[in-house]
Amino acid sequence: MLKTNDETRIDVVALMNEMGRAARAAARPLATAPERVKNVALHAMADAIVASERKILAANAVDVASGTENGLSVASMDRLALSSERIRAIAAGVRAIAALADPVGDVIAAWTRPNGLEIERVRTPLGVIGVIFESRPNVTADAGALCLKAGNAVILRGGSDSANSSAAIHACLAAGLKVAGLPETAIQLVPVTDRAAVGAMLKGLSGAIDVIVPRGGKSLVGRVQEEAKVPVFAHLEGLCHLYIDVSADPDMAREIAVNAKMRRTGICGATETLLVDRAAADSHLVPVLTALAGAGCEIRADSAVRGYYPAATPASDDDWTTEYLDAIISVKLVEGIQGAIDHIETLSSHHTEAIVAEDPVVVERFFNEIDSAILLHNASTQFADGGEFGMGAEIGIATGKMHARGPVGVEQLTSFKYRVRGSGQIRP
Amino acid sequence: MLKTNDETRIDVVALMNEMGRAARAAARPLATAPERVKNVALHAMADAIVASERKILAANAVDVASGTENGLSVASMDRLALSSERIRAIAAGVRAIAALADPVGDVIAAWTRPNGLEIERVRTPLGVIGVIFESRPNVTADAGALCLKAGNAVILRGGSDSANSSAAIHACLAAGLKVAGLPETAIQLVPVTDRAAVGAMLKGLSGAIDVIVPRGGKSLVGRVQEEAKVPVFAHLEGLCHLYIDVSADPDMAREIAVNAKMRRTGICGATETLLVDRAAADSHLVPVLTALAGAGCEIRADSAVRGYYPAATPASDDDWTTEYLDAIISVKLVEGIQGAIDHIETLSSHHTEAIVAEDPVVVERFFNEIDSAILLHNASTQFADGGEFGMGAEIGIATGKMHARGPVGVEQLTSFKYRVRGSGQIRP
Repeated sequence: MLKTNDETRIDVVALMNEMGRAARAAARPLATAPERVKNVALHAMADAIVASERKILAANAVDVASGTENGLSVASMDRLALSSERIRAIAAGVRAIAALADPVGDVIAAWTRPNGLEIERVRTPLGVIGVIFESRPNVTADAGALCLKAGNAVILRGGSDSANSSAAIHACLAAGLKVAGLPETAIQLVPVTDRAAVGAMLKGLSGAIDVIVPRGGKSLVGRVQEEAKVPVFAHLEGLCHLYIDVSADPDMAREIAVNAKMRRTGICGATETLLVDRAAADSHLVPVLTALAGAGCEIRADSAVRGYYPAATPASDDDWTTEYLDAIISVKLVEGIQGAIDHIETLSSHHTEAIVAEDPVVVERFFNEIDSAILLHNASTQFADGGEFGMGAEIGIATGKMHARGPVGVEQLTSFKYRVRGSGQIRP
Repeated sequence: MLKTNDETRIDVVALMNEMGRAARAAARPLATAPERVKNVALHAMADAIVASERKILAANAVDVASGTENGLSVASMDRLALSSERIRAIAAGVRAIAALADPVGDVIAAWTRPNGLEIERVRTPLGVIGVIFESRPNVTADAGALCLKAGNAVILRGGSDSANSSAAIHACLAAGLKVAGLPETAIQLVPVTDRAAVGAMLKGLSGAIDVIVPRGGKSLVGRVQEEAKVPVFAHLEGLCHLYIDVSADPDMAREIAVNAKMRRTGICGATETLLVDRAAADSHLVPVLTALAGAGCEIRADSAVRGYYPAATPASDDDWTTEYLDAIISVKLVEGIQGAIDHIETLSSHHTEAIVAEDPVVVERFFNEIDSAILLHNASTQFADGGEFGMGAEIGIATGKMHARGPVGVEQLTSFKYRVRGSGQIRP
């Protein structure tokens, strides 16, 4: 690991461009690597992670000591600190990725033309992925393994606070690649903490990077989306809404609201705004809010809601666009499904929205007229997760409409090409 | 149509931003417009185009007169000039788009989770498409109709040489939208010829444009790819290769080579470089080159080829990366399939490549190891076309790996979202 005082002596952009060239060169053999070989690499990585526990913990202790000295937040320190148990979980995560089906070569569609041409659309790797993440050592292994499974080379750039931990884990990934005879440059970790490295990645390293995936908070994602010259798979915010229709089962509405908000408040699929049908104000509103408050949630409500539930804090305009990631919820009465659709289409971050309703017409309108990545009926927004979708490990959730939307798993890290089989056809 | 001398008095960027807002507003009702309503609009557009033949021809006559005065090339004048027959063909093209299946709402994938959640991935419109095209009046109708069919709003920016013709055709599209009760701003034509309008579109009009599709020559596409801040569906070049293996049927190789190069030399799927297996030099090479020359093709060859076919012009280094779009072909002997793969992976524009071979092992290597949008076996590269693929009308062919690759038809102009149906599930 090159420390900041060494970095002044190295040319970061030249280093990054060389990493880009190496990744691009590795992408070609990776693209045709058989599933078996990739899985040998992944299991060897997991073995190396388990076998290197002492080394990884020692490296992590250095990061944790610096983090304490630098006054990292409790949440940051929790994400940074590794334990024997966490290291075993990281290795298990890599093995779970090995167990996923290999998407490369899958025939997505096939048809035959009247002239006898047989056309197939088959999955191919995307090429080179750039992953920029904050100081969470486990992402080193998760992201490296997931990109490899989809046949992609990857350049990882982790947060400086976890630099030693990430380097120790990366060494295990490189060892796994070596065991399988795959190029070690298939998974590279940027060895400098200079922010210029991120800038170079966002410019795409002269065409070497096909897509950037940021993993972290809003400031990281915002910078990446603002500056990137290459496609980005990300969501800036998960401003998720839950709408309770007058036709909702009251018990179900209450249980889903509490779960959607309070199960884990810090994840992107946590509900931030509750919209309640004005027609359900008498029947559903107060029990739901009472249950939320009873679970420890602060209620910020418009004046109409406060008429029914005076204990609520008045909501300001900002509350309708704030991703709290905390035990706070904004609550508003709306004019039925039309009001819910208008509110969500205007203010949502288009990540995940849920409806509780029994009226099928209302549900279909919700499903048809709201254009968010994930829409749920009679289920908690907290199911917005690649694992919960049965897609296996995910590298994040995307709200863009291009290529990947919703959970970004191994399949979303692929492209496709057409294979056409003929018997001498020429075009008239 | 605002002429250049008026443009100094208007704020082009403000005008474009207003068009962007109008397009975004139109996108929402369009996204939920039933197939029947969109088809009513498309047929009404076709009717209006046929009924407006005199007006369109009169507008075209103005453009043709200016074009003559401005010294447009013969090819440009041919693309610009309309006739009664061409206008009927434009209308027929719009009706053919009406006849395509509506992709919006298609369930692409569906599965049920162990907890009973039913997950569907369904197609949705992309939103707002920006189409930037050269002076081909027919693209106004083609692009407008195709975007509408996929439920997208579109902003069309045509070349200034066809401004009057495009405006006359656009009036027919607007009339069709009106008949169907769809927002007329669903298909907007930029009413100024100022190049600043293109610059504003490439910046995305403050998030109003989701994707840009350039239709035109290399200088247009190059500018768009270089400057665009939003995703682009395009190919810069169609540097297509044909490889003839020693296992190829010699007659088939000859027929495919002549068709792939000479059927139409100006299309992106025309072959530009012929690679011949060195082992096939005695058996296949000379008959193929003789047939090409007999069809009027200039042969530019490396020295090894010239040993067998001395009439060829010596090829320079540039010939291996030149898209001639003309009756010229570069020819090289390569060391079997490995040599062909190495040459293509190094120099191709990754648009379309074909192989003539009977050996299945060689064919599989070609299909697996070359990463171009379209790969063909025993068929002409000139089949690289959405219509020939059975995908209906296309707005172009993309060589990027993100979202759309190969022919960009109505399906490629969509995104998707997840619909999840539950019965009260909460996440443990």
